[in-house]
Amino acid sequence: MTSGTAAAGLSAGVLPSVALAQDKSQLPEYVAWKNPDAVIVHSEQTIETTREAIGASSITPTNILYVRNNLPAPGGDIAADPDAWEIAFSGVGQERSMTLGELKGFGVETVACVLQCSGNGRAFFTHEASGTKWSVGAAGNVFWTGVPLKAVVAALGGPASGAVYLTATGGEELPAGLDPLSLMVERSVPIEALENALIAYEINGEALPVAHGGPARLVVPGYFGVNNVKYVKAITLSPDESQAKIQQSGYRVRPVGESGGPSQPSMWQMPVKSWITSPLESASSGRVVIEGVAFGGDSEVTGVEVSTDGGANWEKAAFTGPDLGPYAWRPFALITDLAAGTHELVSRATNAAGDAQPEDFPENERGYGNNGWRAHGVSVTLA
Amino acid sequence: MTSGTAAAGLSAGVLPSVALAQDKSQLPEYVAWKNPDAVIVHSEQTIETTREAIGASSITPTNILYVRNNLPAPGGDIAADPDAWEIAFSGVGQERSMTLGELKGFGVETVACVLQCSGNGRAFFTHEASGTKWSVGAAGNVFWTGVPLKAVVAALGGPASGAVYLTATGGEELPAGLDPLSLMVERSVPIEALENALIAYEINGEALPVAHGGPARLVVPGYFGVNNVKYVKAITLSPDESQAKIQQSGYRVRPVGESGGPSQPSMWQMPVKSWITSPLESASSGRVVIEGVAFGGDSEVTGVEVSTDGGANWEKAAFTGPDLGPYAWRPFALITDLAAGTHELVSRATNAAGDAQPEDFPENERGYGNNGWRAHGVSVTLA
Repeated sequence: MTSGTAAAGLSAGVLPSVALAQDKSQLPEYVAWKNPDAVIVHSEQTIETTREAIGASSITPTNILYVRNNLPAPGGDIAADPDAWEIAFSGVGQERSMTLGELKGFGVETVACVLQCSGNGRAFFTHEASGTKWSVGAAGNVFWTGVPLKAVVAALGGPASGAVYLTATGGEELPAGLDPLSLMVERSVPIEALENALIAYEINGEALPVAHGGPARLVVPGYFGVNNVKYVKAITLSPDESQAKIQQSGYRVRPVGESGGPSQPSMWQMPVKSWITSPLESASSGRVVIEGVAFGGDSEVTGVEVSTDGGANWEKAAFTGPDLGPYAWRPFALITDLAAGTHELVSRATNAAGDAQPEDFPENERGYGNNGWRAHGVSVTLA
Repeated sequence: MTSGTAAAGLSAGVLPSVALAQDKSQLPEYVAWKNPDAVIVHSEQTIETTREAIGASSITPTNILYVRNNLPAPGGDIAADPDAWEIAFSGVGQERSMTLGELKGFGVETVACVLQCSGNGRAFFTHEASGTKWSVGAAGNVFWTGVPLKAVVAALGGPASGAVYLTATGGEELPAGLDPLSLMVERSVPIEALENALIAYEINGEALPVAHGGPARLVVPGYFGVNNVKYVKAITLSPDESQAKIQQSGYRVRPVGESGGPSQPSMWQMPVKSWITSPLESASSGRVVIEGVAFGGDSEVTGVEVSTDGGANWEKAAFTGPDLGPYAWRPFALITDLAAGTHELVSRATNAAGDAQPEDFPENERGYGNNGWRAHGVSVTLA
């Protein structure tokens, strides 16, 4: 570990229970129902789950799931009558609008998948990127229940000819007097994503709250959070990517110092990733249970190794929870004996596509996509 | 449907949102964190999840999970320091006590399984059995995380010779002056249950609350709730069943009018079961999404059929959520078109052992084990 990342690893262990334990009053009103002991409030629109609270959970309870909004939610109680919410479909054989109530007639499916912000892990870069300094907790693994989008598209006559993108528009109200394209949340992903996409109206078996995109959100399993458009009001199968700034120049990976543009990689499919959640502090030497979570991104996670000496030696960890499908994370554990002293605990996952986490992910202008195993390690001192 | 069961089916639809919507103040203090809109408070110790709230969830959120305690929980804040909780092991090569902290060193595993009270469905019997009139909601599907008991037993030298039961003792304080055997919660199950049993300390990824048996509970996947002993303080691999009344004469299935005794079947493995959770009321005619949950008991659920005419005709429903393993339930759905009028909706599941739900489960003295498909149906009138 570099001294920079070692320090970050250490603070990840110390932050949750000491430095940033939350006063309930610090939670913004719209997420007052979150568990204040399990989250870090970075700002009104950016709330992170503590590394400790992630633990070895198969599913992240909604009341500790991170929140990241690009814009304030639409006004009014938009989730009061979910079935009345309307979504306009275009770029299909028969263009039309349908209410969520009507859409439910096309099918229902529940998928477990990781929701992760593009900037998760930004805190571990040396470059001072703008944006929230997320550690590991801008991610969670949840059940989404919704309407399979491909069934809707099929019923509407299929994609229009020439369509190569699936584009979704959020229902946020935009401030007057500004160019809508500069602010609107509209994202395009490759049309292949249609295969697994859901119009989700429940999270973890309960109605989707506005804080997480209710009454209806596009869910694209295996893709970074930003593509899972909240309060989705329009879906288009389009020949071109959205012209919105958030698509054209935002969420693009580029070298430090460069501006964003459409030729750079967009934050679409997630890569393989893992991190340790325990122990973080105050553990005793002797028998130690090292736990964490691992996921494959857009390909099922197949294995995870743990090192207690900063990557010099590795041992295979065991998955400890059920396989919830290719887009979900799985908790893992390695039980081992550790002497008193400081240990650098790191984890490294692999997926079915044959990808493994790199030792380091390249620094980049906005601090996106960090899945380097070294930076995500924790330095733990056992008594 | 008999008129009795039809009425019960109807009230199951009407109760949750009308007759028994809960005032928060009705929730006992120890479960004040439950969602009052999703539960029915039968008594201080018996709290049911509404049929509506079960919905099509893969996992039951802890804040709506049913509660059934045979005795008040141990006094003091027993879950304040879970790792200090002690469990005594006997009937093994080396008998000894260990703290939960020590036990964690033997392994960790997360299992999804149905927790169901033996009396779930009692409300649908004609016989007026004593005990809470549970409808469908004395059941939930949760993740338990804990220590695999077989690893502990192996480390302690394996079962003593002649052991054929796994017996667990709860940590409740017993009132003075009464025969402890008449009150204590101590249950025995066949020793084969050791294969999958956990000493659970987390539910749905969070520390096990006292209301659900924290700091540590025995979990026996596939077995009725009573065998999942709360605040477990002793585990014995024994040649005989517990002498406690709850084992010898309690939780025994017998004909109406007979006393309980050790020769009658004990409430051990659960049978295959399913029920519909939507629609319950105020649905419109036309396209209707019929949803529910199904589980195989101690053998994986393999299919579920739905009838909209009280069992005259059946159609195969689709599982809508991921397979969480053999002991979990799965949500299902059938999308169909229904005319205005009254429809008798029933569901019938099958499991890998080849069992199907019976049309009716025999009336019995205590109202246990009801998995008859007819009685669990709902009568729905569509406008």
